[in-house]
Amino acid sequence: MTPIVCIVGKSGAGKTYVMERVVAELKNRGYRVATVKHSAHGFELDKEGKDSWQHAQAGSDAVVISSPQKFAIIRKSDRDYTLAELSRFIGPDFDIILAEGFKRDKAFKVEVHRREQGADLICGRDELLAVVTDEQLERNVPQFAPDDTMELVDLIEKRYLKQEDETAISLFVNGKPVPLNDFVRRLFSNTLFSMVSALKGIPKARNIDISVRKKARK
Amino acid sequence: MTPIVCIVGKSGAGKTYVMERVVAELKNRGYRVATVKHSAHGFELDKEGKDSWQHAQAGSDAVVISSPQKFAIIRKSDRDYTLAELSRFIGPDFDIILAEGFKRDKAFKVEVHRREQGADLICGRDELLAVVTDEQLERNVPQFAPDDTMELVDLIEKRYLKQEDETAISLFVNGKPVPLNDFVRRLFSNTLFSMVSALKGIPKARNIDISVRKKARK
Repeated sequence: MTPIVCIVGKSGAGKTYVMERVVAELKNRGYRVATVKHSAHGFELDKEGKDSWQHAQAGSDAVVISSPQKFAIIRKSDRDYTLAELSRFIGPDFDIILAEGFKRDKAFKVEVHRREQGADLICGRDELLAVVTDEQLERNVPQFAPDDTMELVDLIEKRYLKQEDETAISLFVNGKPVPLNDFVRRLFSNTLFSMVSALKGIPKARNIDISVRKKARK
Repeated sequence: MTPIVCIVGKSGAGKTYVMERVVAELKNRGYRVATVKHSAHGFELDKEGKDSWQHAQAGSDAVVISSPQKFAIIRKSDRDYTLAELSRFIGPDFDIILAEGFKRDKAFKVEVHRREQGADLICGRDELLAVVTDEQLERNVPQFAPDDTMELVDLIEKRYLKQEDETAISLFVNGKPVPLNDFVRRLFSNTLFSMVSALKGIPKARNIDISVRKKARK
């Protein structure tokens, strides 16, 4: 599964500032980065997407707007998805997913802290990867000053991005991510690469995406 | 692969009108529908997505905005993707993908025609599934009046949605869709369901999504 890290903090602590700098430094080091932001009030596409919204109003479950520079996929949901659930839709093309907010999610957190907002943190120790803080805290957790982006990214890289595996694999069953041990990862990976290599007229595979759905009987 | 149908026609022919009615009728029949619209001039998310755009400007390759009702995934691209390529990002949760426009795509087309716009069609016979027209055309292709939505959807359903397979499967190698014959479909499908059923603590699988990536050596 693609590793997920949340940047959390009280309102006004400077989460977006830290996000921007971490994203820029990860890109600088050559990683593919997806970012996630929660919007409690929903969001709208502007008037250029007018036809698309007519599609949505006709009942379409997903609306896609494609352009030469970028494309957007907007899907209906019936609740707030967890980041692990969202990672299935984000897809496997990224080295890391960084979320701003999502303080109740199970993913590991970097908390942005400012002295003037009080001494307490919103995260418990177990979920904390690091704290970005403008004062030294008496806690047993890695701490970085707001501008120590290199050192924070070193920690994220060491923890999530310098794995020895030659292949990355993600498995979702009924929409939920399934963690795999090394043996099973190799078994699935080797099986899929072997099966695909036996197909005729297919170039040497580096990336394989396969989905199977049992159909509901109509 | 998820079947793809384009609704094409000259500007002002009434493509969106036909799209809306086809989407609504497919939904009425219980299908899961994704719609695609091309936007030559790009598109923007409105001000509610401001933090997200700061993420994008910091270099993020994909920006996700999540809310309780819907979520959007915006990805950078370096060119216009084909519908078959887009279908990998849209994912396997849909019975059909309907696109408005995309007249140069390889997918099958329904052309919307109006007498006052001239006798010629923009599609060749080989790519035409049907014509929605306000005049009888002397062509060997199924023709429907603009309000004959039921009959048009009957044709789409018969052609793309009433397959006997109990499982749907999609395979992408290096981002490109790979068509599979029945034997290979069953082989992949049975292999994956068997392997997943051997994992401990996993509920009975109806849907499986698996991705493997050979990592670039840093």
